[in-house]
Amino acid sequence: MADNTRELLALIPAGGAGTRLWPISRKDHPKFLSDLSGAGASLLEQTCTRLAPLTGEDGILIITGQAHREAVGATLELAEEQIICEPSGRDSLPAIALGAAIAYHRCREREGQQIADELVVASFAADHLIGDEPGFQAVVRKAITAARAGYITVIGITPDHPATGFGYIRRGQPCSAPGVAEGVYVCEQFVEKPNADLARQYVADGAYLWNAGMFVMGAKVFLDHLAQLMPADYERIMALAQAWDSPERKEAIDEHWEKITKIAIDHAIAEPVAERGGVAVVPADFDWNDVGDYLSLAQVNPAGDDGVIHLDVQAEVPALAIDSPGAFIASSVSEHQGKAVVVAGCPQIVVVQTNSTIFITHIDRAQKVKDVVSALDQAGMGELR
Amino acid sequence: MADNTRELLALIPAGGAGTRLWPISRKDHPKFLSDLSGAGASLLEQTCTRLAPLTGEDGILIITGQAHREAVGATLELAEEQIICEPSGRDSLPAIALGAAIAYHRCREREGQQIADELVVASFAADHLIGDEPGFQAVVRKAITAARAGYITVIGITPDHPATGFGYIRRGQPCSAPGVAEGVYVCEQFVEKPNADLARQYVADGAYLWNAGMFVMGAKVFLDHLAQLMPADYERIMALAQAWDSPERKEAIDEHWEKITKIAIDHAIAEPVAERGGVAVVPADFDWNDVGDYLSLAQVNPAGDDGVIHLDVQAEVPALAIDSPGAFIASSVSEHQGKAVVVAGCPQIVVVQTNSTIFITHIDRAQKVKDVVSALDQAGMGELR
Repeated sequence: MADNTRELLALIPAGGAGTRLWPISRKDHPKFLSDLSGAGASLLEQTCTRLAPLTGEDGILIITGQAHREAVGATLELAEEQIICEPSGRDSLPAIALGAAIAYHRCREREGQQIADELVVASFAADHLIGDEPGFQAVVRKAITAARAGYITVIGITPDHPATGFGYIRRGQPCSAPGVAEGVYVCEQFVEKPNADLARQYVADGAYLWNAGMFVMGAKVFLDHLAQLMPADYERIMALAQAWDSPERKEAIDEHWEKITKIAIDHAIAEPVAERGGVAVVPADFDWNDVGDYLSLAQVNPAGDDGVIHLDVQAEVPALAIDSPGAFIASSVSEHQGKAVVVAGCPQIVVVQTNSTIFITHIDRAQKVKDVVSALDQAGMGELR
Repeated sequence: MADNTRELLALIPAGGAGTRLWPISRKDHPKFLSDLSGAGASLLEQTCTRLAPLTGEDGILIITGQAHREAVGATLELAEEQIICEPSGRDSLPAIALGAAIAYHRCREREGQQIADELVVASFAADHLIGDEPGFQAVVRKAITAARAGYITVIGITPDHPATGFGYIRRGQPCSAPGVAEGVYVCEQFVEKPNADLARQYVADGAYLWNAGMFVMGAKVFLDHLAQLMPADYERIMALAQAWDSPERKEAIDEHWEKITKIAIDHAIAEPVAERGGVAVVPADFDWNDVGDYLSLAQVNPAGDDGVIHLDVQAEVPALAIDSPGAFIASSVSEHQGKAVVVAGCPQIVVVQTNSTIFITHIDRAQKVKDVVSALDQAGMGELR
C-alpha cells in the first residue's frame, strides 16, 4: 500500500494533563509530549507513527489547546491546518466532533460530496502505548469495514487482568452486516469502571473488553448521530467547521464554542447508539497500555538487575537503589537540573523528580496521585501542578 | 563569675564526617558546620557557646582538618592560634593529645610551670546537642573537682532507653578522694555498644551510663598517662607541641605526625586507666543527643500538625506530606537549589535533599546509612560522599 493512501482520517485529541502521572505530567507539560518508555519519541509522535500507514501523509488532525500548540508543532511534521486549536477544553465530544466536522467539510470542498460521505474518521488517544503496530493496524482495518457498514466502531482490548481503572465493553453477537470483516461483534453495552469483584467476573465471563477509547466511524454517520442526539450542539459544530478555514473562524468561535455541551463522546454518542444496536466492537489482543499511572508506567519499562526501574525522561541522572526491589525512580529534568537519586530500603517506592519538584509515593497508591495534585492547591503549592 | 575566668581549657576535635547523616553531612561539609535543630547556629557554634562560661574568652582550642579550617574560622570568633590544624585525621587520641600538649606548653610558657601543671583540659564532641546548659555546666564543674584530684573524668549520660548505638560506662563506688564533689563515682568499666538484650539489662541495672565522649582531666595527668602507656607517641606529641608555635612546626609535622598511633582515646587511655582505678565518672541527667543518625535528628526536631518533621538546614524549601506520619523531610540546599518535596503515603520515610543529591530511606534503617555511603564508591558515585 502506497504511503499516500488514506484509509481513514485520524483525529487525535491531545489535551489531557494526565494528573495521575504528576509531576512527570504537568499542566504545562502533559504526558503526550514525553517519551515515557525510552522509545526516543514522545507518546504523541509514536501515536502518529503508528497511524501513518493507515492515514497516509496528511490524514492526521491533532486537536489540542493553545498552550500546547507550539510544542505539538515542533514535535510533528504537520501542515499548519492539521493542528486544530481548541479554544478551551470541553471534554472529548466537542474536540472529536469539531475534528470530524472540519475533516468532513474539507473533504467535501476538495474531493466532493460523495467522497466526503464515505470518509472514515477515527479517534485515538495521544498518550497510549501499543506494542504491536501491525497487529494494531490489522484491527483498525477490521474496524473500518464496520464503520463503512454504518457502525460506530470501538476497539476493545482483551483484558489480561481484572483492572478496575478502565471502563468495559460487553460484546454481543458477531456482526453480520454485509462487508464487515470476521471478528467484529455488535456492542451490547458500555459499563463503568468496576470494583475488583466485578472486574474479576468480567474477565472470567470472556465477553468483556477494556474500553481503550478508540472509535472508528464514518464522519457522516457520526455527525448524523450527533444531529439526532444533540441537535443544538450539532448546529454549532457545523457552523464552526464551515467557518474554520475562513476569516470568520474567530467570530464563530466566540459565538459557539463555550455554548457547546461539555461531555465525553462515550456518554454523548457511543452509549445511546449502542442501546439501539448501532455500535460494533473489535476485540484486540495487541499489547496496549494507557500509561495512565505509575503502575502502568512501571509495566512498560524494564527493571534492571537490582529489580528497580530507572526512567530518564530527558537528561540522564545518576541513581542508585539498595534493598529496594520494585522501586521506580524517574527523572524528568533539563540538562544539569537533576539531582542524583539514592534510595535504600524502600521496596516499591516511586520517586520522581522534575526541575522543580521531588515526589515520593508508594506504587500501591498509584491511583491516588490525582488527590495529591488536588491537595497542592490547598497547600498553597498550586504552581507545582 | 567573670567572663574571662578559665575553669578549664576545652579541646574540641572537629573532624568527623558523620556518615550516618549523609547527605546532610558530607566529606566537605561535616555535620558540625550545620544547624540541625533550627537553633540559628551550627552544632560547633552551639558547643562553643555552651562552654564559654567555663572556658572564658580564649579557653577553647578547635582541632580540625585543613579542609575545614576556613569554615571553622569563618563560623567562630577565635584567634588564629585557637584553631589547631591536624595534618591528617588519626582518630581521637592524637587530636586530643596534641591539643592538650599545645595547651600545656603554651600555659607553661605564658603562666609558668605551676599553673600549667594545674591546667584542666576537657574534650567535647563538636557535633552533639545538649538541652540544658546550666545543668551541663554544673556537671562539668563536678568533673573538674575529680580532674583536680588526679582522675581522668568522664561524663556519663543516664540512659532513658536501651540504646544500642552507644558504648556504656559502669559506675562503681562514690569517689571518696579529698576535694571531689558529691555525685562523682569511680568508673568500673567501659563496655562496647551492646545488643538490644544487653542494653535492656544495662538500663534495668541502673549503674550503666552512656559514654558521651566527654573527658575532663588535668593536662599533666593525661600526658603522664600517655607517657607511661604509649611512650613513643608521647615523645612525638610533645615534640610537636614544642615546635607548634615556632618556625619548626612544619618540620616537626613531617617528622612525627604520620608515625603517631591511630587510636581512639577510649582504647588508648580511658580503658587501661579505668582498670587501675584512675577514671571517675559523673552521671548526668541533662538532655543530650549525639545527632548521630536520622533517628536522633528526628528526636531533636518537633513534628508539625501532620506528624511530619520538616527540617530546612539552609534555605527554606516548600514541602507537603500526605498520609505520612513519622516522615522526616530535610533540605540542606543553597538558595534556589531546592526542589519542592511532596510525599504521599510513606509513613516514617526519610527524605533528604542537598544541592546534588536526593536520598530516601526508612527511619528504621537510620543506622545503615553508613553502608549506603560505602556503596556510593562501588556504584561510581563517590563524588556524592
